[in-house]
Amino acid sequence: MPRQITSFSNDTVKRLRSLRDKKARRSEGLFLAEGLRIIAEARDEGHLPEIVAYSSAGGVHPLAQEIIAAAEANGADVIETTPEILTKMSGKDNPQMLLGAFRQPDVALAKVDRGRSPLWLVAQALRDPGNIGTILRTGDAVGAGGLILIDDCADPFSVEAVRASMGALFTQQIAAARWPEFLAWLRNGEGQLVGTSLKTEHDYLGVTYEKPCFLLIGNEQQGLPADYEPECDLLVKISMSGRADSLNAAIAAAVMAFQVRASWR
Amino acid sequence: MPRQITSFSNDTVKRLRSLRDKKARRSEGLFLAEGLRIIAEARDEGHLPEIVAYSSAGGVHPLAQEIIAAAEANGADVIETTPEILTKMSGKDNPQMLLGAFRQPDVALAKVDRGRSPLWLVAQALRDPGNIGTILRTGDAVGAGGLILIDDCADPFSVEAVRASMGALFTQQIAAARWPEFLAWLRNGEGQLVGTSLKTEHDYLGVTYEKPCFLLIGNEQQGLPADYEPECDLLVKISMSGRADSLNAAIAAAVMAFQVRASWR
Repeated sequence: MPRQITSFSNDTVKRLRSLRDKKARRSEGLFLAEGLRIIAEARDEGHLPEIVAYSSAGGVHPLAQEIIAAAEANGADVIETTPEILTKMSGKDNPQMLLGAFRQPDVALAKVDRGRSPLWLVAQALRDPGNIGTILRTGDAVGAGGLILIDDCADPFSVEAVRASMGALFTQQIAAARWPEFLAWLRNGEGQLVGTSLKTEHDYLGVTYEKPCFLLIGNEQQGLPADYEPECDLLVKISMSGRADSLNAAIAAAVMAFQVRASWR
Repeated sequence: MPRQITSFSNDTVKRLRSLRDKKARRSEGLFLAEGLRIIAEARDEGHLPEIVAYSSAGGVHPLAQEIIAAAEANGADVIETTPEILTKMSGKDNPQMLLGAFRQPDVALAKVDRGRSPLWLVAQALRDPGNIGTILRTGDAVGAGGLILIDDCADPFSVEAVRASMGALFTQQIAAARWPEFLAWLRNGEGQLVGTSLKTEHDYLGVTYEKPCFLLIGNEQQGLPADYEPECDLLVKISMSGRADSLNAAIAAAVMAFQVRASWR
Protein backbone atom coordinates (compact mmCIF):
# COMPACT_ATOMS: atom_id res chain seq x y z
CA MET A 1 0.00 0.00 0.00
CA PRO A 2 1.34 3.45 -0.85
CA ARG A 3 2.10 5.62 2.14
CA GLN A 4 0.27 8.95 2.36
CA ILE A 5 2.79 11.76 2.70
CA THR A 6 1.79 15.37 3.28
CA SER A 7 4.98 16.65 4.93
CA PHE A 8 7.76 18.42 3.05
CA SER A 9 10.22 17.07 5.60
CA ASN A 10 9.45 13.41 4.89
CA ASP A 11 12.61 11.45 4.11
CA THR A 12 11.42 10.09 0.77
CA VAL A 13 10.33 13.56 -0.30
CA LYS A 14 13.75 14.92 0.65
CA ARG A 15 15.48 12.05 -1.10
CA LEU A 16 13.58 12.58 -4.36
CA ARG A 17 14.11 16.30 -4.12
CA SER A 18 17.84 15.77 -3.65
CA LEU A 19 18.07 14.00 -7.01
CA ARG A 20 17.89 17.37 -8.72
CA ASP A 21 21.53 17.69 -7.63
CA LYS A 22 24.29 15.83 -9.41
CA LYS A 23 26.14 14.91 -6.23
CA ALA A 24 23.09 13.20 -4.77
CA ARG A 25 22.39 11.42 -8.07
CA ARG A 26 25.92 10.11 -8.08
CA SER A 27 25.95 8.96 -4.46
CA GLU A 28 22.47 7.41 -4.70
CA GLY A 29 22.97 5.98 -8.18
CA LEU A 30 19.46 7.18 -9.00
CA PHE A 31 17.91 9.79 -11.28
CA LEU A 32 14.53 11.44 -11.56
CA ALA A 33 12.02 11.03 -14.39
CA GLU A 34 8.78 12.98 -14.46
CA GLY A 35 5.45 12.33 -16.05
CA LEU A 36 3.45 9.38 -17.24
CA ARG A 37 4.72 9.50 -20.80
CA ILE A 38 8.39 9.09 -19.92
CA ILE A 39 7.78 6.64 -17.08
CA ALA A 40 5.55 4.47 -19.30
CA GLU A 41 8.32 4.49 -21.92
CA ALA A 42 10.72 3.30 -19.23
CA ARG A 43 8.36 0.50 -18.19
CA ASP A 44 7.96 -0.62 -21.81
CA GLU A 45 11.75 -0.87 -21.98
CA GLY A 46 11.81 -2.98 -18.81
CA HIS A 47 12.71 -0.25 -16.31
CA LEU A 48 10.63 0.26 -13.19
CA PRO A 49 11.29 3.09 -10.73
CA GLU A 50 12.72 2.28 -7.31
CA ILE A 51 10.89 5.20 -5.75
CA VAL A 52 7.54 6.52 -6.96
CA ALA A 53 5.65 9.62 -5.92
CA TYR A 54 2.24 10.51 -7.25
CA SER A 55 -0.80 12.58 -6.50
CA SER A 56 -4.34 11.39 -6.87
CA ALA A 57 -5.67 14.95 -6.98
CA GLY A 58 -7.60 14.96 -10.24
CA GLY A 59 -7.57 11.16 -10.49
CA VAL A 60 -4.87 8.64 -11.39
CA HIS A 61 -4.57 7.51 -15.00
CA PRO A 62 -5.13 3.73 -15.40
CA LEU A 63 -1.67 3.35 -16.95
CA ALA A 64 -0.13 5.20 -13.99
CA GLN A 65 -2.02 2.87 -11.63
CA GLU A 66 -0.61 -0.10 -13.49
CA ILE A 67 2.96 1.19 -13.29
CA ILE A 68 2.62 2.13 -9.62
CA ALA A 69 1.36 -1.37 -8.84
CA ALA A 70 4.15 -3.01 -10.84
CA ALA A 71 6.80 -0.85 -9.14
CA GLU A 72 5.35 -1.67 -5.73
CA ALA A 73 5.29 -5.40 -6.49
CA ASN A 74 8.92 -4.97 -7.51
CA GLY A 75 9.80 -3.55 -4.08
CA ALA A 76 9.66 0.16 -4.86
CA ASP A 77 9.07 2.77 -2.21
CA VAL A 78 5.73 4.31 -3.25
CA ILE A 79 4.27 7.47 -1.78
CA GLU A 80 1.04 9.25 -2.47
CA THR A 81 1.44 12.94 -1.90
CA THR A 82 0.15 16.41 -2.73
CA PRO A 83 0.59 18.49 -5.89
CA GLU A 84 2.46 21.05 -3.75
CA ILE A 85 5.05 18.51 -2.70
CA LEU A 86 5.38 17.23 -6.27
CA THR A 87 5.98 20.82 -7.35
CA LYS A 88 8.75 21.11 -4.83
CA MET A 89 10.35 17.87 -5.97
CA SER A 90 10.24 18.64 -9.68
CA GLY A 91 11.03 22.34 -9.44
CA LYS A 92 8.37 23.06 -12.04
CA ASP A 93 5.33 25.25 -11.71
CA ASN A 94 3.17 22.71 -13.49
CA PRO A 95 4.50 19.50 -12.04
CA GLN A 96 3.70 16.10 -13.43
CA MET A 97 1.47 14.06 -11.14
CA LEU A 98 3.86 11.10 -11.32
CA LEU A 99 7.57 11.06 -10.49
CA GLY A 100 9.92 8.11 -10.43
CA ALA A 101 13.49 7.57 -9.31
CA PHE A 102 15.31 5.11 -11.54
CA ARG A 103 18.60 3.28 -11.13
CA GLN A 104 21.36 4.82 -13.26
CA PRO A 105 22.70 2.35 -15.82
CA ASP A 106 26.36 1.37 -15.98
CA VAL A 107 27.99 3.83 -18.38
CA ALA A 108 31.20 1.88 -18.91
CA LEU A 109 32.27 1.84 -22.55
CA ALA A 110 32.84 -1.92 -22.20
CA LYS A 111 29.05 -2.32 -21.97
CA VAL A 112 28.56 -0.97 -25.50
CA ASP A 113 27.91 -3.64 -28.12
CA ARG A 114 28.62 -1.69 -31.30
CA GLY A 115 27.09 -4.43 -33.44
CA ARG A 116 23.66 -3.55 -32.05
CA SER A 117 23.26 -0.58 -34.37
CA PRO A 118 24.92 0.84 -37.50
CA LEU A 119 24.92 4.33 -36.00
CA TRP A 120 26.22 5.73 -32.73
CA LEU A 121 26.31 9.32 -31.58
CA VAL A 122 29.36 10.62 -29.75
CA ALA A 123 29.33 14.00 -27.97
CA GLN A 124 32.46 15.76 -26.79
CA ALA A 125 32.36 18.23 -23.88
CA LEU A 126 28.71 19.08 -24.48
CA ARG A 127 27.70 21.46 -21.70
CA ASP A 128 23.96 21.90 -22.15
CA PRO A 129 21.85 19.13 -20.58
CA GLY A 130 18.99 20.10 -22.92
CA ASN A 131 21.25 19.38 -25.88
CA ILE A 132 22.18 15.98 -24.43
CA GLY A 133 18.51 15.07 -23.96
CA THR A 134 17.58 16.33 -27.42
CA ILE A 135 20.42 14.32 -28.99
CA LEU A 136 19.20 11.21 -27.17
CA ARG A 137 15.70 11.82 -28.55
CA THR A 138 17.13 12.29 -32.04
CA GLY A 139 19.21 9.13 -31.63
CA ASP A 140 16.10 7.15 -30.81
CA ALA A 141 14.25 8.58 -33.81
CA VAL A 142 17.04 7.77 -36.23
CA GLY A 143 17.70 4.28 -34.87
CA ALA A 144 21.05 4.97 -33.23
CA GLY A 145 22.34 2.55 -30.64
CA GLY A 146 23.17 5.18 -28.09
CA LEU A 147 25.19 8.17 -27.06
CA ILE A 148 28.82 8.10 -25.95
CA LEU A 149 29.80 11.11 -23.87
CA ILE A 150 33.44 12.16 -24.18
CA ASP A 151 35.35 14.30 -21.67
CA ASP A 152 33.35 16.64 -19.42
CA CYS A 153 29.77 16.65 -20.61
CA ALA A 154 26.62 17.75 -18.84
CA ASP A 155 24.99 14.98 -16.82
CA PRO A 156 22.66 12.89 -19.02
CA PHE A 157 20.74 11.97 -15.86
CA SER A 158 19.93 15.55 -14.89
CA VAL A 159 16.26 16.49 -14.78
CA GLU A 160 16.73 18.80 -17.80
CA ALA A 161 18.35 16.09 -19.93
CA VAL A 162 15.77 13.47 -18.96
CA ARG A 163 12.96 15.89 -19.84
CA ALA A 164 14.45 16.81 -23.21
CA SER A 165 15.05 13.14 -24.04
CA MET A 166 11.30 12.48 -23.82
CA GLY A 167 12.04 8.94 -22.66
CA ALA A 168 14.86 8.20 -25.10
CA LEU A 169 17.14 7.97 -22.10
CA PHE A 170 15.60 4.54 -21.58
CA THR A 171 15.92 3.37 -25.19
CA GLN A 172 19.40 4.69 -25.97
CA GLN A 173 22.51 3.20 -24.42
CA ILE A 174 24.64 5.76 -22.62
CA ALA A 175 28.38 5.52 -22.10
CA ALA A 176 30.97 7.96 -20.82
CA ALA A 177 34.73 8.00 -21.35
CA ARG A 178 37.76 10.22 -21.75
CA TRP A 179 39.00 10.68 -25.31
CA PRO A 180 42.05 8.33 -25.15
CA GLU A 181 39.92 5.59 -23.62
CA PHE A 182 37.26 6.06 -26.29
CA LEU A 183 39.83 5.95 -29.12
CA ALA A 184 41.39 2.76 -27.77
CA TRP A 185 37.97 1.13 -27.52
CA LEU A 186 36.91 2.36 -30.97
CA ARG A 187 40.03 1.08 -32.72
CA ASN A 188 39.66 -2.29 -31.10
CA GLY A 189 36.79 -3.04 -33.48
CA GLU A 190 35.07 -1.85 -36.62
CA GLY A 191 33.80 1.67 -36.93
CA GLN A 192 34.13 4.86 -38.96
CA LEU A 193 34.63 7.95 -36.85
CA VAL A 194 33.05 10.97 -38.55
CA GLY A 195 33.61 14.50 -37.31
CA THR A 196 32.23 17.80 -38.51
CA SER A 197 34.76 20.51 -39.20
CA LEU A 198 35.03 23.88 -40.87
CA LYS A 199 38.46 22.93 -42.18
CA THR A 200 37.51 20.23 -44.70
CA GLU A 201 36.27 20.34 -48.27
CA HIS A 202 34.18 17.17 -47.92
CA ASP A 203 30.53 18.14 -48.05
CA TYR A 204 28.39 15.98 -45.75
CA LEU A 205 26.11 15.13 -48.67
CA GLY A 206 28.85 13.79 -50.95
CA VAL A 207 30.67 11.16 -48.91
CA THR A 208 30.24 7.50 -48.04
CA TYR A 209 29.32 6.61 -44.51
CA GLU A 210 30.33 3.16 -43.33
CA LYS A 211 28.69 0.95 -40.72
CA PRO A 212 29.02 1.19 -37.85
CA CYS A 213 29.30 4.95 -38.09
CA PHE A 214 30.29 6.96 -35.02
CA LEU A 215 29.17 10.57 -35.39
CA LEU A 216 31.26 12.92 -33.31
CA ILE A 217 29.68 16.20 -32.18
CA GLY A 218 31.88 18.85 -30.57
CA ASN A 219 31.36 21.35 -27.80
CA GLU A 220 28.72 24.07 -28.29
CA GLN A 221 31.23 26.93 -28.32
CA GLN A 222 34.51 25.47 -29.52
CA GLY A 223 33.52 22.53 -31.67
CA LEU A 224 36.01 19.66 -31.64
CA PRO A 225 39.50 20.25 -30.23
CA ALA A 226 41.95 20.69 -33.12
CA ASP A 227 44.01 17.67 -32.07
CA TYR A 228 40.94 15.42 -32.07
CA GLU A 229 40.18 16.06 -35.73
CA PRO A 230 43.10 14.04 -37.20
CA GLU A 231 41.84 11.00 -35.31
CA CYS A 232 38.64 11.00 -37.36
CA ASP A 233 38.36 8.67 -40.36
CA LEU A 234 36.32 11.29 -42.14
CA LEU A 235 35.82 14.99 -41.62
CA VAL A 236 32.81 16.58 -43.27
CA LYS A 237 31.32 20.01 -43.32
CA ILE A 238 27.74 21.12 -43.40
CA SER A 239 28.01 24.08 -45.71
CA MET A 240 26.30 27.22 -44.48
CA SER A 241 24.30 29.49 -46.73
CA GLY A 242 23.88 32.40 -44.33
CA ARG A 243 26.08 34.60 -42.22
CA ALA A 244 26.57 32.14 -39.39
CA ASP A 245 29.36 29.57 -39.46
CA SER A 246 27.87 27.15 -36.97
CA LEU A 247 24.74 25.32 -35.96
CA ASN A 248 23.32 24.54 -32.56
CA ALA A 249 25.09 21.31 -31.50
CA ALA A 250 21.88 19.26 -31.25
CA ILE A 251 20.81 20.54 -34.68
CA ALA A 252 24.17 19.62 -36.24
CA ALA A 253 23.91 16.15 -34.70
CA ALA A 254 20.44 15.68 -36.16
CA VAL A 255 21.27 16.96 -39.64
CA MET A 256 24.26 14.60 -39.76
CA ALA A 257 22.46 11.60 -38.28
CA PHE A 258 19.49 11.88 -40.62
CA GLN A 259 21.80 12.32 -43.61
CA VAL A 260 23.82 9.23 -42.64
CA ARG A 261 20.62 7.22 -42.39
CA ALA A 262 19.32 8.65 -45.67
CA SER A 263 22.58 7.70 -47.44
CA TRP A 264 22.05 4.06 -46.45
CA ARG A 265 18.57 3.77 -47.98
CA MET B 1 30.42 60.62 -23.91
CA PRO B 2 28.93 57.61 -22.13
CA ARG B 3 27.40 58.36 -18.77
CA GLN B 4 28.85 56.48 -15.79
CA ILE B 5 26.06 54.67 -13.97
CA THR B 6 26.54 52.79 -10.73
CA SER B 7 23.01 52.89 -9.40
CA PHE B 8 20.50 50.08 -9.81
CA SER B 9 17.72 52.64 -9.70
CA ASN B 10 18.96 54.60 -12.71
CA ASP B 11 16.21 55.03 -15.31
CA THR B 12 18.18 53.55 -18.21
CA VAL B 13 19.11 50.55 -16.08
CA LYS B 14 15.47 50.06 -15.15
CA ARG B 15 14.40 50.49 -18.76
CA LEU B 16 16.86 47.89 -20.07
CA ARG B 17 15.95 45.54 -17.24
CA SER B 18 12.26 45.91 -18.08
CA LEU B 19 12.88 44.55 -21.59
CA ARG B 20 13.07 41.08 -20.13
CA ASP B 21 9.27 41.33 -19.93
CA LYS B 22 7.12 41.00 -23.01
CA LYS B 23 4.77 43.81 -22.04
CA ALA B 24 7.61 46.31 -21.77
CA ARG B 25 9.10 45.07 -25.04
CA ARG B 26 5.79 45.63 -26.73
CA SER B 27 5.16 49.09 -25.31
CA GLU B 28 8.75 50.25 -25.92
CA GLY B 29 9.08 48.53 -29.28
CA LEU B 30 12.55 47.44 -28.22
CA PHE B 31 14.27 44.17 -27.41
CA LEU B 32 17.48 43.18 -25.67
CA ALA B 33 20.53 41.54 -27.23
CA GLU B 34 23.52 40.49 -25.17
CA GLY B 35 27.15 40.03 -26.02
CA LEU B 36 29.61 41.29 -28.55
CA ARG B 37 29.07 38.43 -30.98
CA ILE B 38 25.36 39.03 -31.48
CA ILE B 39 25.62 42.82 -31.38
CA ALA B 40 28.44 42.79 -33.95
CA GLU B 41 26.29 40.57 -36.15
CA ALA B 42 23.50 43.15 -35.83
CA ARG B 43 25.84 45.98 -36.77
CA ASP B 44 27.08 44.05 -39.81
CA GLU B 45 23.44 43.75 -40.88
CA GLY B 46 22.95 47.48 -40.44
CA HIS B 47 21.30 47.49 -37.02
CA LEU B 48 22.65 49.68 -34.24
CA PRO B 49 21.27 49.59 -30.70
CA GLU B 50 19.24 52.55 -29.42
CA ILE B 51 20.45 51.95 -25.89
CA VAL B 52 23.83 50.46 -24.99
CA ALA B 53 25.18 49.37 -21.62
CA TYR B 54 28.69 48.10 -21.12
CA SER B 55 31.31 47.58 -18.48
CA SER B 56 34.96 48.41 -18.91
CA ALA B 57 35.96 46.11 -16.06
CA GLY B 58 38.45 43.81 -17.75
CA GLY B 59 38.83 46.14 -20.72
CA VAL B 60 36.63 46.88 -23.70
CA HIS B 61 37.17 44.90 -26.91
CA PRO B 62 38.13 47.14 -29.87
CA LEU B 63 35.11 45.91 -31.83
CA ALA B 64 32.86 46.77 -28.88
CA GLN B 65 34.44 50.25 -28.74
CA GLU B 66 33.72 50.69 -32.42
CA ILE B 67 30.08 49.66 -32.05
CA ILE B 68 29.58 51.83 -28.95
CA ALA B 69 30.99 54.83 -30.81
CA ALA B 70 28.82 54.15 -33.87
CA ALA B 71 25.70 53.78 -31.71
CA GLU B 72 26.49 56.97 -29.85
CA ALA B 73 27.06 58.87 -33.12
CA ASN B 74 23.68 57.53 -34.18
CA GLY B 75 22.01 59.08 -31.14
CA ALA B 76 21.93 56.05 -28.82
CA ASP B 77 21.74 56.36 -25.07
CA VAL B 78 25.06 54.85 -23.92
CA ILE B 79 25.90 54.02 -20.33
CA GLU B 80 29.02 52.61 -18.78
CA THR B 81 28.16 50.56 -15.75
CA THR B 82 29.26 47.77 -13.43
CA PRO B 83 29.29 43.99 -13.98
CA GLU B 84 26.78 43.73 -11.08
CA ILE B 85 24.29 45.96 -12.84
CA LEU B 86 24.81 44.12 -16.13
CA THR B 87 24.10 40.88 -14.27
CA LYS B 88 20.86 42.32 -13.00
CA MET B 89 19.84 43.47 -16.47
CA SER B 90 20.62 40.21 -18.24
CA GLY B 91 19.43 37.87 -15.49
CA LYS B 92 22.48 35.68 -16.07
CA ASP B 93 25.18 34.75 -13.58
CA ASN B 94 27.88 35.29 -16.18
CA PRO B 95 26.61 38.37 -17.93
CA GLN B 96 27.97 39.66 -21.17
CA MET B 97 29.89 42.93 -20.79
CA LEU B 98 27.87 44.53 -23.59
CA LEU B 99 24.09 44.84 -23.84
CA GLY B 100 22.06 46.61 -26.47
CA ALA B 101 18.39 47.47 -26.89
CA PHE B 102 17.30 47.28 -30.51
CA ARG B 103 14.19 48.52 -32.29
CA GLN B 104 11.77 45.65 -33.07
CA PRO B 105 11.20 45.25 -36.79
CA ASP B 106 7.77 45.45 -38.35
CA VAL B 107 6.43 41.87 -38.37
CA ALA B 108 3.59 42.47 -40.82
CA LEU B 109 3.27 39.70 -43.38
CA ALA B 110 2.99 42.38 -46.06
CA LYS B 111 6.67 43.15 -45.46
CA VAL B 112 7.73 39.68 -46.59
CA ASP B 113 9.13 39.55 -50.12
CA ARG B 114 8.90 35.82 -50.84
CA GLY B 115 11.10 36.17 -53.92
CA ARG B 116 14.08 36.96 -51.69
CA SER B 117 14.66 33.28 -50.86
CA PRO B 118 13.53 29.88 -52.14
CA LEU B 119 12.90 28.68 -48.58
CA TRP B 120 10.85 30.08 -45.73
CA LEU B 121 10.19 28.56 -42.34
CA VAL B 122 6.74 28.78 -40.82
CA ALA B 123 6.10 27.87 -37.18
CA GLN B 124 2.66 27.32 -35.75
CA ALA B 125 1.94 27.86 -32.04
CA LEU B 126 5.54 27.20 -31.04
CA ARG B 127 5.74 27.79 -27.29
CA ASP B 128 9.43 27.53 -26.49
CA PRO B 129 11.45 30.71 -27.15
CA GLY B 130 14.61 28.57 -27.32
CA ASN B 131 13.06 26.63 -30.21
CA ILE B 132 12.17 29.89 -31.99
CA GLY B 133 15.72 31.15 -31.63
CA THR B 134 17.22 27.83 -32.71
CA ILE B 135 14.96 27.73 -35.78
CA LEU B 136 16.08 31.27 -36.69
CA ARG B 137 19.70 30.14 -36.40
CA THR B 138 18.97 27.09 -38.56
CA GLY B 139 17.15 29.29 -41.07
CA ASP B 140 20.20 31.50 -41.40
CA ALA B 141 22.48 28.48 -41.86
CA VAL B 142 20.31 26.96 -44.56
CA GLY B 143 19.73 30.22 -46.42
CA ALA B 144 16.06 30.68 -45.56
CA GLY B 145 14.51 34.10 -45.98
CA GLY B 146 12.95 34.19 -42.57
CA LEU B 147 10.49 32.78 -40.09
CA ILE B 148 6.75 33.34 -40.17
CA LEU B 149 5.08 32.80 -36.81
CA ILE B 150 1.51 31.56 -36.97
CA ASP B 151 -1.06 31.83 -34.17
CA ASP B 152 0.20 32.15 -30.58
CA CYS B 153 3.95 31.60 -30.60
CA ALA B 154 6.56 32.48 -28.01
CA ASP B 155 7.99 35.97 -28.47
CA PRO B 156 10.91 35.92 -30.95
CA PHE B 157 12.22 39.07 -29.25
CA SER B 158 12.48 37.48 -25.80
CA VAL B 159 15.95 37.28 -24.28
CA GLU B 160 15.90 33.47 -24.59
CA ALA B 161 15.00 33.51 -28.28
CA VAL B 162 17.56 36.20 -29.09
CA ARG B 163 20.24 34.20 -27.28
CA ALA B 164 19.39 30.94 -29.04
CA SER B 165 19.31 32.68 -32.42
CA MET B 166 22.98 33.64 -32.02
CA GLY B 167 22.35 36.77 -34.05
CA ALA B 168 20.19 35.18 -36.75
CA LEU B 169 17.37 37.36 -35.45
CA PHE B 170 19.09 40.15 -37.36
CA THR B 171 19.60 38.21 -40.61
CA GLN B 172 16.25 36.44 -40.83
CA GLN B 173 13.04 38.29 -41.58
CA ILE B 174 10.36 37.74 -38.96
CA ALA B 175 6.64 37.95 -39.55
CA ALA B 176 3.62 37.06 -37.45
CA ALA B 177 0.07 36.30 -38.52
CA ARG B 178 -3.01 34.25 -37.74
CA TRP B 179 -3.57 31.19 -39.91
CA PRO B 180 -6.34 32.58 -42.18
CA GLU B 181 -4.32 35.73 -42.81
CA PHE B 182 -1.23 33.67 -43.63
CA LEU B 183 -3.16 31.40 -46.02
CA ALA B 184 -4.67 34.37 -47.85
CA TRP B 185 -1.22 35.94 -48.22
CA LEU B 186 0.39 32.65 -49.28
CA ARG B 187 -2.20 31.90 -51.97
CA ASN B 188 -1.83 35.37 -53.38
CA GLY B 189 1.52 34.34 -54.86
CA GLU B 190 3.71 31.39 -55.64
CA GLY B 191 4.68 28.91 -52.97
CA GLN B 192 4.48 25.28 -51.93
CA LEU B 193 3.25 24.78 -48.38
CA VAL B 194 4.87 21.65 -46.91
CA GLY B 195 3.75 20.20 -43.59
CA THR B 196 5.03 17.24 -41.62
CA SER B 197 2.45 14.72 -40.57
CA LEU B 198 2.22 11.23 -39.16
CA LYS B 199 -0.76 10.54 -41.40
CA THR B 200 0.91 10.55 -44.79
CA GLU B 201 2.82 7.93 -46.75
CA HIS B 202 5.09 10.46 -48.46
CA ASP B 203 8.57 10.08 -47.07
CA TYR B 204 10.40 13.41 -46.80
CA LEU B 205 13.30 11.99 -48.84
CA GLY B 206 11.22 10.92 -51.82
CA VAL B 207 9.27 14.00 -52.85
CA THR B 208 9.83 17.12 -54.95
CA TYR B 209 10.12 20.43 -53.17
CA GLU B 210 9.22 23.50 -55.20
CA LYS B 211 10.49 27.06 -54.87
CA PRO B 212 9.58 29.00 -52.93
CA CYS B 213 8.99 26.31 -50.34
CA PHE B 214 7.22 27.18 -47.08
CA LEU B 215 8.06 24.62 -44.41
CA LEU B 216 5.37 24.44 -41.76
CA ILE B 217 6.39 23.27 -38.29
CA GLY B 218 3.69 22.50 -35.74
CA ASN B 219 3.40 22.99 -32.00
CA GLU B 220 5.82 21.07 -29.76
CA GLN B 221 3.13 18.92 -28.14
CA GLN B 222 0.31 18.69 -30.65
CA GLY B 223 1.98 19.13 -34.01
CA LEU B 224 -0.21 20.79 -36.63
CA PRO B 225 -3.95 21.15 -36.00
CA ALA B 226 -5.79 18.49 -37.99
CA ASP B 227 -7.73 21.07 -40.00
CA TYR B 228 -4.53 22.85 -41.06
CA GLU B 229 -3.10 19.76 -42.76
CA PRO B 230 -5.48 19.73 -45.77
CA GLU B 231 -4.34 23.26 -46.60
CA CYS B 232 -0.82 22.01 -47.26
CA ASP B 233 0.27 21.34 -50.84
CA LEU B 234 2.39 18.47 -49.61
CA LEU B 235 2.42 16.45 -46.42
CA VAL B 236 5.53 14.46 -45.67
CA LYS B 237 6.69 12.28 -42.85
CA ILE B 238 10.10 11.82 -41.34
CA SER B 239 10.04 8.10 -40.66
CA MET B 240 11.15 7.13 -37.19
CA SER B 241 13.35 4.14 -36.52
CA GLY B 242 13.01 4.04 -32.74
CA ARG B 243 10.23 3.97 -30.20
CA ALA B 244 9.42 7.65 -30.35
CA ASP B 245 6.95 9.03 -32.85
CA SER B 246 8.12 12.61 -32.79
CA LEU B 247 11.15 14.86 -32.87
CA ASN B 248 11.89 18.06 -31.03
CA ALA B 249 10.27 20.83 -33.11
CA ALA B 250 13.54 22.65 -33.82
CA ILE B 251 15.15 19.35 -34.83
CA ALA B 252 12.28 18.48 -37.19
CA ALA B 253 12.53 21.93 -38.74
CA ALA B 254 16.26 21.48 -39.33
CA VAL B 255 16.02 17.97 -40.75
CA MET B 256 13.35 19.16 -43.19
CA ALA B 257 15.10 22.42 -44.11
CA PHE B 258 18.43 20.76 -44.81
CA GLN B 259 16.74 18.03 -46.85
CA VAL B 260 14.86 20.59 -48.92
CA ARG B 261 18.12 22.40 -49.61
CA ALA B 262 19.91 19.12 -50.40
CA SER B 263 17.18 18.13 -52.85
CA TRP B 264 17.82 21.32 -54.84
CA ARG B 265 21.54 20.67 -55.39
